[in-house]
Amino acid sequence: MSPLNQFDPQGRLRHLITLEGLTPDHILDLLDRAQRHVRPIHERPATGQSLAGLTVANIFTEPSTRTRASFELAARRLGADVLNLEIMLSSRAKGETVLDTIHTLQAMSTDIFVIRDAQPGVCRLVADHVAAHVSVLSAGEAHLSHPTQGLLDALTIRQRKGGFETLTLAIVGDVRHSRVARSAYQVFSALGVGELRIVAPAALMPELGEMPLARRFDSIEAGIAQADVVMMLRIQKERMVQAAIPDADDYFIRWGLTAKRLTLAKKDALVMHPGPMNREVEIASEVADGPQSVIRQQVTNGVAVRMALLETVIAHRTLRQGPV
Amino acid sequence: MSPLNQFDPQGRLRHLITLEGLTPDHILDLLDRAQRHVRPIHERPATGQSLAGLTVANIFTEPSTRTRASFELAARRLGADVLNLEIMLSSRAKGETVLDTIHTLQAMSTDIFVIRDAQPGVCRLVADHVAAHVSVLSAGEAHLSHPTQGLLDALTIRQRKGGFETLTLAIVGDVRHSRVARSAYQVFSALGVGELRIVAPAALMPELGEMPLARRFDSIEAGIAQADVVMMLRIQKERMVQAAIPDADDYFIRWGLTAKRLTLAKKDALVMHPGPMNREVEIASEVADGPQSVIRQQVTNGVAVRMALLETVIAHRTLRQGPV
Amino acid sequence: MSPLNQFDPQGRLRHLITLEGLTPDHILDLLDRAQRHVRPIHERPATGQSLAGLTVANIFTEPSTRTRASFELAARRLGADVLNLEIMLSSRAKGETVLDTIHTLQAMSTDIFVIRDAQPGVCRLVADHVAAHVSVLSAGEAHLSHPTQGLLDALTIRQRKGGFETLTLAIVGDVRHSRVARSAYQVFSALGVGELRIVAPAALMPELGEMPLARRFDSIEAGIAQADVVMMLRIQKERMVQAAIPDADDYFIRWGLTAKRLTLAKKDALVMHPGPMNREVEIASEVADGPQSVIRQQVTNGVAVRMALLETVIAHRTLRQGPV
Repeated sequence: MSPLNQFDPQGRLRHLITLEGLTPDHILDLLDRAQRHVRPIHERPATGQSLAGLTVANIFTEPSTRTRASFELAARRLGADVLNLEIMLSSRAKGETVLDTIHTLQAMSTDIFVIRDAQPGVCRLVADHVAAHVSVLSAGEAHLSHPTQGLLDALTIRQRKGGFETLTLAIVGDVRHSRVARSAYQVFSALGVGELRIVAPAALMPELGEMPLARRFDSIEAGIAQADVVMMLRIQKERMVQAAIPDADDYFIRWGLTAKRLTLAKKDALVMHPGPMNREVEIASEVADGPQSVIRQQVTNGVAVRMALLETVIAHRTLRQGPV
Repeated sequence: MSPLNQFDPQGRLRHLITLEGLTPDHILDLLDRAQRHVRPIHERPATGQSLAGLTVANIFTEPSTRTRASFELAARRLGADVLNLEIMLSSRAKGETVLDTIHTLQAMSTDIFVIRDAQPGVCRLVADHVAAHVSVLSAGEAHLSHPTQGLLDALTIRQRKGGFETLTLAIVGDVRHSRVARSAYQVFSALGVGELRIVAPAALMPELGEMPLARRFDSIEAGIAQADVVMMLRIQKERMVQAAIPDADDYFIRWGLTAKRLTLAKKDALVMHPGPMNREVEIASEVADGPQSVIRQQVTNGVAVRMALLETVIAHRTLRQGPV
Repeated sequence: MSPLNQFDPQGRLRHLITLEGLTPDHILDLLDRAQRHVRPIHERPATGQSLAGLTVANIFTEPSTRTRASFELAARRLGADVLNLEIMLSSRAKGETVLDTIHTLQAMSTDIFVIRDAQPGVCRLVADHVAAHVSVLSAGEAHLSHPTQGLLDALTIRQRKGGFETLTLAIVGDVRHSRVARSAYQVFSALGVGELRIVAPAALMPELGEMPLARRFDSIEAGIAQADVVMMLRIQKERMVQAAIPDADDYFIRWGLTAKRLTLAKKDALVMHPGPMNREVEIASEVADGPQSVIRQQVTNGVAVRMALLETVIAHRTLRQGPV
């Protein structure tokens, strides 16, 4: 497979399937644009008409209320028509191939495909086959990539810390199976974070070749010591077994972010979580709801980042075609 | 638990989870406002932009095509973005708590939560935890409350009868398990209906302390005699067993509203039903479709009442925050 | 049953449940109007506000992502509110009848019902009972009728061939169980196509009395010889058994449209398929994706045809009632 090209011939962002290959400028442009869409939640949200007359197809083959809702609201607040489709792209339901489904929706004038799929490669496959004016945005791909999550994480940190160069950032939990961790690694590597740590039981660490710039820690205490940001990951039951941790209670004892453990990080360290949280498993409620938590701000930023992304890939289209 | 406060510090309606505690003025204001949204169905429905830029999350954990559609149309006809979510608030799907789901949606700038849940207390729990600008509207809560149904019932009666003071109103059927009956009791008690009757087999009567102002009848013939309004309730199979009624045919014989029985009520008595109807079980088709039936008008009024309610709780918000 | 009348007292189209009974003028008016909505897919699609303030209820009781999406986009691009409902009209879920569900939605000011149902007669039943201002559009009814598919097929052929009179059109595959074939037969008979052929294994031919104007062929080679248009139909596994064809591979060998077979048709013959395709079963991929295929254009035309149809039946309404 040739390397994935997410840019159009003029070098403008067209797809977003992975954060790999994005320059700091690309990322910072998206963050700047997203920041303009952030509002306090008690105000009416930012809206616009830059996607009026365009159609966004939200294709979710894994259940994800929150990410689907976030993309849906982002698109609708910019005036787009949104189709919500729960179809199995990676299966051949009724004998139709992935690409037939996509071509059908494209033939109905779908302009942007937002795709979440549990199988690696589906986003890429679609991006390789859609027409030149169509964009593909990943809403989470297998364990590989969740690029809008990486962007919203970066936006959240920049809002609170101003920049990245001097920060120590710890990603804690099931790093091995986490698309959130992979996208975080990519975005923070690109942005030149001071120190990037991955903190996990040995069995939940990624392969040795992966995430080469990260320092590895096999204890949460050491891993979050003096950190500026602690990003907790969601743990699934079946992964505990892999790590020889008998149950959720035990996971919490060994790996949960408690208020006591959090004191090991810097005093003003941020606590993040991509949600949905397993309270009292990977994170204590008093931490999730405490003053250092920016978990809800992450959600708010998620909508803003997705609005910025939709506008960016559509700007590509508008420029390519002249005014429409 | 402290008593539920559905009003903001200035005394304006913010949530609607129960009709208990609403004054006649509150109710009549809502009915007046709703009346302005009622149109003959062959005209284009009333629309507006008072909710433009706002987001309504429709969270239905019990299937209810009609109530969901009614809230959805009400919100969209006022310009709101509507998110339809089928999630189990009362379960801990994926380990996430009710309140995490709500806080996530709130962080995406959801302004109004419309919630139907089979478990008592979920609406209240949510209302106790949302931000000050957010409203919670019940779309039906367990057997306890269905406040917009109570309001649409009152609107329908006022349209046909002009007022409530002189009316005899009979609620017939499974009163014990009915949120419709409880909300009807609350609204008609508040509005000072002349006589309120509950008419049910003994086993389907509410506890003795409940609905203290209602007269109790254990025969439909006596219960609807000279009534101005006959409100039939939906009966479920499993409740017949409780009432020692062997089957639907037998229920119809003993408790069904037939044309013959209806002659016992006043000549111009209204026939109501919250839907969906079990025809030839609790109500004969010739009655449901007959000249005294206002069942379809109830549905039309339902949209108008929900529009009025959405505008009312948003007026609260707009006033609190100044123009937006 | 009296014959279905799809026209209002002034002779204007009100419902579309079957193409039977439509004159060439009716059909050509719809095609002309649809043609005005066709855009290249890289342009913003045609939009308008002719359905603003109106409500379209999309009631699909068979899964059909593509047809539902097509109607939904058509309606929304004309400014309508769209309710998507997945309810079993032909069952009595919760004891409610089909007509109660319809009357409930009508009482909420639904103006147009788009219905797909596996049971014959549901569309007709609904059309017979809705109020005079309401329209019913079939989105596929059992094996009987799929009128918007027939219209989009006609539009596609007219775009490429200019007219119908001199054309030889072959419909190939499971004609017996196909609503697509029946609606094609109706539209092309009405439009006076030169020669209409149905090409199928004997067991998948319609009864002898059906489609009297069509020539019957029991071999694909003879059936598509010198044809101007080859319309392939979707085959279902259970139908192969009926035709004594052991499996999909065997079906492809005997009945699949291969590149080699296609050379029997005219050199510029069009290849059509209603989708979703079973690739390498009824059609070879190289044909489906080849230069003679207009399969994607059919999908694009589908949205345009549905927009034209919605506008047409609403024009009926607007005229009847004066400006609204």
